[in-house]
Amino acid sequence: MRERLAAADLDAMLVSSLVNVRYLSGFTGSNAALLVRADDDTPVLATDGRYRTQAAAQVPDAEIVIERACAPHLAGRAAADGVRRLGFESHVVTVDGHTALAKAAGENVELVRAAGTVEALREVKDAGEVAVLRLACEAADAALAELVERGGLRPGRTEKEVRRELEALMLDHGADGPSFETIVAAGPNSAIPHHRPTDAVLAAGDFVKIDFGALVSGYHSDMTRTFVLAPVAQWQRDIYALVAAAQRAGREALVPGTPLRDVDAAARQVIADAGHADNFGHGLGHGVGLQIHEAPGIGAASAGTLLAGSVVTVEPGVYLPDRGGVRIEDTLVVGESGTPDLLTRFPKELAIL
Amino acid sequence: MRERLAAADLDAMLVSSLVNVRYLSGFTGSNAALLVRADDDTPVLATDGRYRTQAAAQVPDAEIVIERACAPHLAGRAAADGVRRLGFESHVVTVDGHTALAKAAGENVELVRAAGTVEALREVKDAGEVAVLRLACEAADAALAELVERGGLRPGRTEKEVRRELEALMLDHGADGPSFETIVAAGPNSAIPHHRPTDAVLAAGDFVKIDFGALVSGYHSDMTRTFVLAPVAQWQRDIYALVAAAQRAGREALVPGTPLRDVDAAARQVIADAGHADNFGHGLGHGVGLQIHEAPGIGAASAGTLLAGSVVTVEPGVYLPDRGGVRIEDTLVVGESGTPDLLTRFPKELAIL
Repeated sequence: MRERLAAADLDAMLVSSLVNVRYLSGFTGSNAALLVRADDDTPVLATDGRYRTQAAAQVPDAEIVIERACAPHLAGRAAADGVRRLGFESHVVTVDGHTALAKAAGENVELVRAAGTVEALREVKDAGEVAVLRLACEAADAALAELVERGGLRPGRTEKEVRRELEALMLDHGADGPSFETIVAAGPNSAIPHHRPTDAVLAAGDFVKIDFGALVSGYHSDMTRTFVLAPVAQWQRDIYALVAAAQRAGREALVPGTPLRDVDAAARQVIADAGHADNFGHGLGHGVGLQIHEAPGIGAASAGTLLAGSVVTVEPGVYLPDRGGVRIEDTLVVGESGTPDLLTRFPKELAIL
Repeated sequence: MRERLAAADLDAMLVSSLVNVRYLSGFTGSNAALLVRADDDTPVLATDGRYRTQAAAQVPDAEIVIERACAPHLAGRAAADGVRRLGFESHVVTVDGHTALAKAAGENVELVRAAGTVEALREVKDAGEVAVLRLACEAADAALAELVERGGLRPGRTEKEVRRELEALMLDHGADGPSFETIVAAGPNSAIPHHRPTDAVLAAGDFVKIDFGALVSGYHSDMTRTFVLAPVAQWQRDIYALVAAAQRAGREALVPGTPLRDVDAAARQVIADAGHADNFGHGLGHGVGLQIHEAPGIGAASAGTLLAGSVVTVEPGVYLPDRGGVRIEDTLVVGESGTPDLLTRFPKELAIL
C-alpha cells in the first residue's frame, strides 16, 4: 500500500471502505477508517467505543483511536501530521462524506481521488487467501454433494426448503455462513437469473438451478449447478450442453494477460453461435474474495486484462423465459502458466435426478 | 414522496439507495435506481438484464428500463423530460457517482442534495410494516425460547454452535434468515459489545450474551438477552439488575415528542449514577425496519425527537473488560399514546441456567 502511495505521489491514504480496512488491517468491525501514511509504517485505525477491545486484539500493530466519526477524524489527523496530498476512496465516500472530510482536513490538505487503489491490491490473491477460498469452495462442494446424495432434490420439496437444507449443510461442512442469499430456482423460475427462493414446489421435468456459496473467514465461494428432475426433455439437454460448452470455453480463456472482454467473448460467442445471444443477459464472471463481487469484472464492456493470481467466476447462462434456464458456474484461480486452478469441484455433467 | 418533492421545490428525485428503491417500489434486485417525478405518477425503474422478469413482476405500475448504469441513465432521462431541479441522495451517491450523474444530466439540470428524504418517510412505519416486524420479532422470540427449553445454553458448547442452532431455529419459526450476524458471547467475551462467535466454550459461571434477530420479508428484528450459567456471582446479579433498570427507564422514555437525546439520557443516567458511565460506550438504540440500523438513532448526540409509529431498539449495556458484560435489548413501536408496543416479548428477568 505504501508503495502505491509513493507511485501516486500521495502523502497518505484515507481508507473508508470497511472491506478495504479489513483487507489492510484485519479489523472486522462495522465502523472504521484507516489512515496509511507514506512515511510512517504505523497506520492509524479509527473506530468507535463498541470495538475498543476488538480493535486492540485484531490490529495490535496500529495506533487505535476511538472516535465515532472515523473518517473525518482521520482527515483532521492527517492535516495535523502535515499531510498535503491525501488520497480518498472517491468510489466509496459519499458526496456528503466528502464535504465532512474537506471540512475536517482544512485548507492545507488536498483531497485526491484514489478510487480502486486498495481493490487493485486485492485483485491478486496471496497464498493464504487462496487457501481460505479453497476451504470455502470445498464447504460448498461437500454441502451440495450431501444434499444430492440424501435425495434433497426431489419433486414435492419447495425452493425454500432446498435453500435451507443446503445452507445448513454448508455450516456442517465448515462454513461460517452462506456467502450470499442462496438461489434455488425450479422449473420456469430457473429462467430468472437471480431468482429468490419461494414456496414453489419442485416438479418432475424441472430444471433446478442452484447458485450459492460458503463464507469462510470472510472469504466467499461462488458456484452454480443446474440439475434436471427426471424425465429430461430434449430442449433441456440441448441448452445444458450449450451452456456447458460455453462455460468450458470461458474457463479455457482464463490465461493471464488476456483482455477481460475477450474472456467474456470466448463463452458468449458459443451461445451467440447457437442463436441464444439474447438469452444470456449478464456478464460472464467476476472476481471473488472478501466480497462476493470484486475486481475484475468479466463482461463485454470490461477494460483491462486478466491477472495471474486473481480468483474469478465463469458463469454463462441461457434463460428461456417461462420455460427454464441453465447456468453453470465455477470459481477458479488464474494460474501463472495459463491453466486455471479449479476451486469448485462438484461435477458439471448433466445430472438427471 | 411526491409531496416531499413539492415541499423541497424539486421537479424529480433520483433514488439510488437500493433499500429506498425497495421501500418506494417493492423491487428487491441488487442493481437499480428509481426516478420519481413531481408531475407524473408513473415512476421509472432502471435495472439490468438479470432482473427483467423480476422487475416486471414486482413493479407492475412503473415504467421499467433495462440499463446497467441505472442512476446515470435516469439522470439523462430526467434531463430529457425537462427536469430542472433533480434531487439526489447525497448521503448515498459517491463522489465518483456524482461525477457520472452530472455528466449524464448535462448543463440544464441542477443536482440538488436531498439526503435522507426517503429515510424520513421510512422512519414512521405503517400498519403493514409493523405487522411484518411483529412476525420477525415473534420468530426470534420463539427461536430463543426453544433454544433455552431444549438446553441449548449449557457448559461445554461453543459460541459458534449456539449461534448456529439459534439461526436454524429462527428458520423453523418462519424467518427468512438472521437479520444480522448473530452475536453469542460467553464469559469474558460478553464484555465485547459486538463480539463475533468463536470456538470459545461456554463454562459454568459465564454470562452468555446473545444479540440476534430474524429477517422476515425484508424487515429486521433485533433483541439481546443475557443469561448466566449457574452458579451466579453477586457482581453478575448487580450489573444485571443495573442494566435491567436502565433498560426499563429507556423504554419508559419512549414517548412521542421526546428529544432523542433525552431518551438516551434516561437510561444512561441510571448507569452513570451507579458509577458505570465509562462501561456503556455505545448509543441507547436505533430504528429498525428494512435496515437493521435506520432512523432514528438514539444516542447522547442525536438531534430530533421521537416520532409516534417509529420502531426502535432500547439496548443499554454495561461491559466490564476481561470479566463480562450484560446487554438487554428490545424492539418496540413508539405508541401515539406514549405507551410503546413491545415486539420482542422474551422475558427479561435474570435467568440462571
